[in-house]
Amino acid sequence: MKIAQIQSLVYDDKKKNLDQMAEAVEKAAADGADLVTFGEMFCCPYITELFAKYAEPDRGETWQFLSDTAKKNHVYLSPGTVPETDESGNIYNTAYVFDRDGQQIAKYRKMHMFDIQIKNGQYYRESDALTAGNEVVVFDTEFGKAGICICFDIRFPELARLMVLKGARFIIAPANFNMTSGPVHWQMLFRARAVDNQCFYIGTSCAFDPERKYKTWGHSLITDPWGRVLTEADEGPSEQMTEIDLTVDDKMRRQLPLLSARRSDIYDVIYKPDEK
Amino acid sequence: MKIAQIQSLVYDDKKKNLDQMAEAVEKAAADGADLVTFGEMFCCPYITELFAKYAEPDRGETWQFLSDTAKKNHVYLSPGTVPETDESGNIYNTAYVFDRDGQQIAKYRKMHMFDIQIKNGQYYRESDALTAGNEVVVFDTEFGKAGICICFDIRFPELARLMVLKGARFIIAPANFNMTSGPVHWQMLFRARAVDNQCFYIGTSCAFDPERKYKTWGHSLITDPWGRVLTEADEGPSEQMTEIDLTVDDKMRRQLPLLSARRSDIYDVIYKPDEK
Repeated sequence: MKIAQIQSLVYDDKKKNLDQMAEAVEKAAADGADLVTFGEMFCCPYITELFAKYAEPDRGETWQFLSDTAKKNHVYLSPGTVPETDESGNIYNTAYVFDRDGQQIAKYRKMHMFDIQIKNGQYYRESDALTAGNEVVVFDTEFGKAGICICFDIRFPELARLMVLKGARFIIAPANFNMTSGPVHWQMLFRARAVDNQCFYIGTSCAFDPERKYKTWGHSLITDPWGRVLTEADEGPSEQMTEIDLTVDDKMRRQLPLLSARRSDIYDVIYKPDEK
Repeated sequence: MKIAQIQSLVYDDKKKNLDQMAEAVEKAAADGADLVTFGEMFCCPYITELFAKYAEPDRGETWQFLSDTAKKNHVYLSPGTVPETDESGNIYNTAYVFDRDGQQIAKYRKMHMFDIQIKNGQYYRESDALTAGNEVVVFDTEFGKAGICICFDIRFPELARLMVLKGARFIIAPANFNMTSGPVHWQMLFRARAVDNQCFYIGTSCAFDPERKYKTWGHSLITDPWGRVLTEADEGPSEQMTEIDLTVDDKMRRQLPLLSARRSDIYDVIYKPDEK
């Protein structure tokens, strides 16, 4: 399975972002990519005040463009996330995934709102503008089952565990860590989640832009079930291709049987919608 | 809170191990330690066949010696772990903790059995000789609530989360990672657990011994809630003192509110004995 990660700059002009995306997908497909991934809010500057302006309803114009792009290039496409509005006017940070025919195979709304206030560091309140999703999402691909989460979500081991218990063998995580948390936590969290859950993690960020107030750490990466970093970008715009072998996690799960050694007779992670 | 971590060699002679322990505690107490910690199976070579030979019932001779040592030196003592037998002849990998008066304030039996078989790497089957414990343990100290887990247990995020949800602000983890998993996972797992759970982790190992078949990685360490490694030993015998500020995690929990941002309306980690 060949994965192209596109770490792109985000412009104020939505059309320019989409055209840039389409161009990168075309190039990646020509290079043999099976899956092309982008960062969180790849088509909308990561500024809470702008989410409403850029948001579209489900299956809107941008959604159609994304679906068409996947189909045209016959690739799986995880176009990061977009701001999505519902009929009540709520806005969500939403990740779609499309298959090679342009069919939507996953839709996930970010579940954990990024509200932080680090002393002499990053301040950000996503919940000023966004509503949280309430659903854990896994989906089928020709390469096996996948899970999806968005940026801050990666900090919550329960969500990772639920996706893997529901069968995910690789997890796509569009993100935008910042210059406070990125250097200290970004790589470590992806490595630890991959090791704990014996699966691959595909973390794709937008590119660092010195002109923006929210400064993105970049460093798109892929980690394997042994916690190795297979690929990692720098902070600037970049495109990288990684081939992963999804049989690796089977081997790992046999040799170091973490998932089967869980003491689910003593504890468990429950997903409340399943309990009803 | 000053913590002395004693990374000692383990001899075949139990008495020699205990005398070495007592001497190290006396020295650490003289240096102002509040808590003195040792590695997993600090008084019994880490060889499954030997656990039965070295095992003692609860409150046996070794237990008494440990209690006396804590009391005599007026320190909190986490003497790593010992093999413990019960009335049915089962053997457990058991961690006791004693307070400054020599009172036992915690008893935890390793919950996850270390059974692995890495290709060209480590093979070990703890469950050939040991029975797993079934209880999550947190306990009070004058510095706040603490949790305890043992070595392989650290690989299971659910156990960490349960201890922290039950109030633990620091977690003591006697351990013996090996030369396969140590270099790649030891530090990362301690850092990630500390960050995810916004608490301190105190990982204490026995020392590397070239004469032993099971080669211990050593590298006793303390990680803080921001994922920093405050102290880390090399693999050889060593004693290290670290002062930690337990108000740090309060600040961290306010600035980067991970524990309160958990979506416990959607998922949760349940502890089955509590559910009954």
